[in-house]
Amino acid sequence: MAIRITGTGSYIPSSIETNANFNKHEFLNNDGSILKHDNDVIIEKFKAITGIGERRYADKHLNTSDLGFFAAEKAIADASIDPETLDYIIVAHNFGDVVHNTIQSDILPCLASRIKHNLRIKNPKCVAYDILFGCPGWIEGVIQAHAFIKAGIAKRCLVIGTEALSRVVDKHDRDSMIYSDGAGATIIEDTNEDRGILAHETASFTYDEAFYLYFGNSNNKDLCRDTRYIKMDGRKIYEFALTNVPLAMKTCLDKSGIPIKDVKKILIHQANEKMDEAILKRFYKLYETDIPKGIMPMSIQEFGNSSVATIPTLYDLITHDKMENQHINKGDVIIFASVGAGMHINAMVYRY
Amino acid sequence: MAIRITGTGSYIPSSIETNANFNKHEFLNNDGSILKHDNDVIIEKFKAITGIGERRYADKHLNTSDLGFFAAEKAIADASIDPETLDYIIVAHNFGDVVHNTIQSDILPCLASRIKHNLRIKNPKCVAYDILFGCPGWIEGVIQAHAFIKAGIAKRCLVIGTEALSRVVDKHDRDSMIYSDGAGATIIEDTNEDRGILAHETASFTYDEAFYLYFGNSNNKDLCRDTRYIKMDGRKIYEFALTNVPLAMKTCLDKSGIPIKDVKKILIHQANEKMDEAILKRFYKLYETDIPKGIMPMSIQEFGNSSVATIPTLYDLITHDKMENQHINKGDVIIFASVGAGMHINAMVYRY
Repeated sequence: MAIRITGTGSYIPSSIETNANFNKHEFLNNDGSILKHDNDVIIEKFKAITGIGERRYADKHLNTSDLGFFAAEKAIADASIDPETLDYIIVAHNFGDVVHNTIQSDILPCLASRIKHNLRIKNPKCVAYDILFGCPGWIEGVIQAHAFIKAGIAKRCLVIGTEALSRVVDKHDRDSMIYSDGAGATIIEDTNEDRGILAHETASFTYDEAFYLYFGNSNNKDLCRDTRYIKMDGRKIYEFALTNVPLAMKTCLDKSGIPIKDVKKILIHQANEKMDEAILKRFYKLYETDIPKGIMPMSIQEFGNSSVATIPTLYDLITHDKMENQHINKGDVIIFASVGAGMHINAMVYRY
Repeated sequence: MAIRITGTGSYIPSSIETNANFNKHEFLNNDGSILKHDNDVIIEKFKAITGIGERRYADKHLNTSDLGFFAAEKAIADASIDPETLDYIIVAHNFGDVVHNTIQSDILPCLASRIKHNLRIKNPKCVAYDILFGCPGWIEGVIQAHAFIKAGIAKRCLVIGTEALSRVVDKHDRDSMIYSDGAGATIIEDTNEDRGILAHETASFTYDEAFYLYFGNSNNKDLCRDTRYIKMDGRKIYEFALTNVPLAMKTCLDKSGIPIKDVKKILIHQANEKMDEAILKRFYKLYETDIPKGIMPMSIQEFGNSSVATIPTLYDLITHDKMENQHINKGDVIIFASVGAGMHINAMVYRY
């Protein structure tokens, strides 16, 4: 018996927002002062650090729950299941539905209810709820589905990560270039096979770290002080992630009993390419082992940081052979790992 | 072995908003037209149906997460536990932190992170997340804690329901009189005793019902169309609840194996006194049994509908002998039941 991902789907908005599109933005520092460099230089430097060349924005008429619904439809088809047999729909996001050009999060009803409604599922025993857990929300949703199956209260769950961060960015903040929109969905099931989730690990660091990512004012002091946007203390997050993510991954891998040499892929949340490379380096250093080539597939160059959607989308693309030079074979061991607002960290060791 | 509530706490804001305070409001119909009757008549009729005479509003400087923190502190003290030993902090709410006189929900970071931060808990293994599940969120949080304990990934959880609905009401809508603020918190633990959670039941009705409670515009058509408030279709909710809540309660009670005559208290979510009385009547009719006197303690007269906070607050008051003529004795069987936005329904049978 093993609890496995039996189907995946993702929704990647077709609208590409290139770095060049930010050239016209008036970037300001936190204190409202104008940045020293020209936008060309700022964007070039941004790309060099984060690796982000472009990102995707959802069409104006779509909401976060719509993206999640599109991904969910594909996951259900991919797993070839009857959606009426789902015991849970768990939706991870950060801001709910934010209608384009408005500033309110609409989370009434929860997005899981909206997605279940759009999937036309009638079965009331299919419990639909949302979790707020920062970028690690999708992994945490999978861990919760895993727990429900182990506890005997579920057999089949739909876990979705969906986000439209483009709706909550401060365009005067250069960090706004990081954020992207998208959705990934997975069916988690109890199976008779001997592969699936081998171990998981979660941690919430809130003592000093709770507000490293926060909802704050625009860098443009002339804008309404009552309107807030996604904000982050990038430097602190970088140091925090570098210290704690490799350790969480190691704890999880050691718990699984799998030796480091058997790990075939590491799918890590992507907010910054340099940060992920540093995390990987430190992780392998903990095992005094060299980093295998191509072990950490990256989509950040094209897709930016779509929060809870990043990892399930990446997994969906690779397992459907839609990513160049990236393949996962039956029996391969994968580590999933994420870090984000909260600050939360989680990891999962998985045999494909 | 049983999974039990080992400590409770609640926070009831001291500021009383009386029905008379609504006398100055300009109440309008959904179509923007003025209501036929004078406010005196509207308020009297409102009171006759809902039972609500007054409600509590949080102080302006406080947020939903603050209320939850106050309740959590009390629950931790009541259970006499070291907060560092908590494995989970699960926070149910509907709108996040909404700063007084602003319109944005602040859910970054999640409220559980904020509460854990304020509790000064250092242990990163204490996982802090939010669930969005409408008014049944607190019961659902308890069910999730129960699942985590059963699955062997937790031993001790803090489950909080906290809400400040006063921040999201349309003052031109007479339904605004229903809503209230408050928080309730509970410690859920694995114990060696033979009492605790006996059965639970959850259902999400989304096919036709997803938007019975929704985020919509003011009845005053002159106000900004981009600003939305908590809205409900009261008639549909009434009919829905009357049909489905008694059945969910019966399914849960039958699952527990407890005969109806052994049920000593029914703690039900309170949005409308007449509705709860009708639910109770129909529930006992399913068993062809008379309704025992005093079985359904009500706090709606004084506290209105504080959503996720209603049931844990009520339970806290009764178990601490703070409610006149209401007592729960060791060994008594209680049914908890809730219904709300989603539309979600849940129930739990519990031996005190």
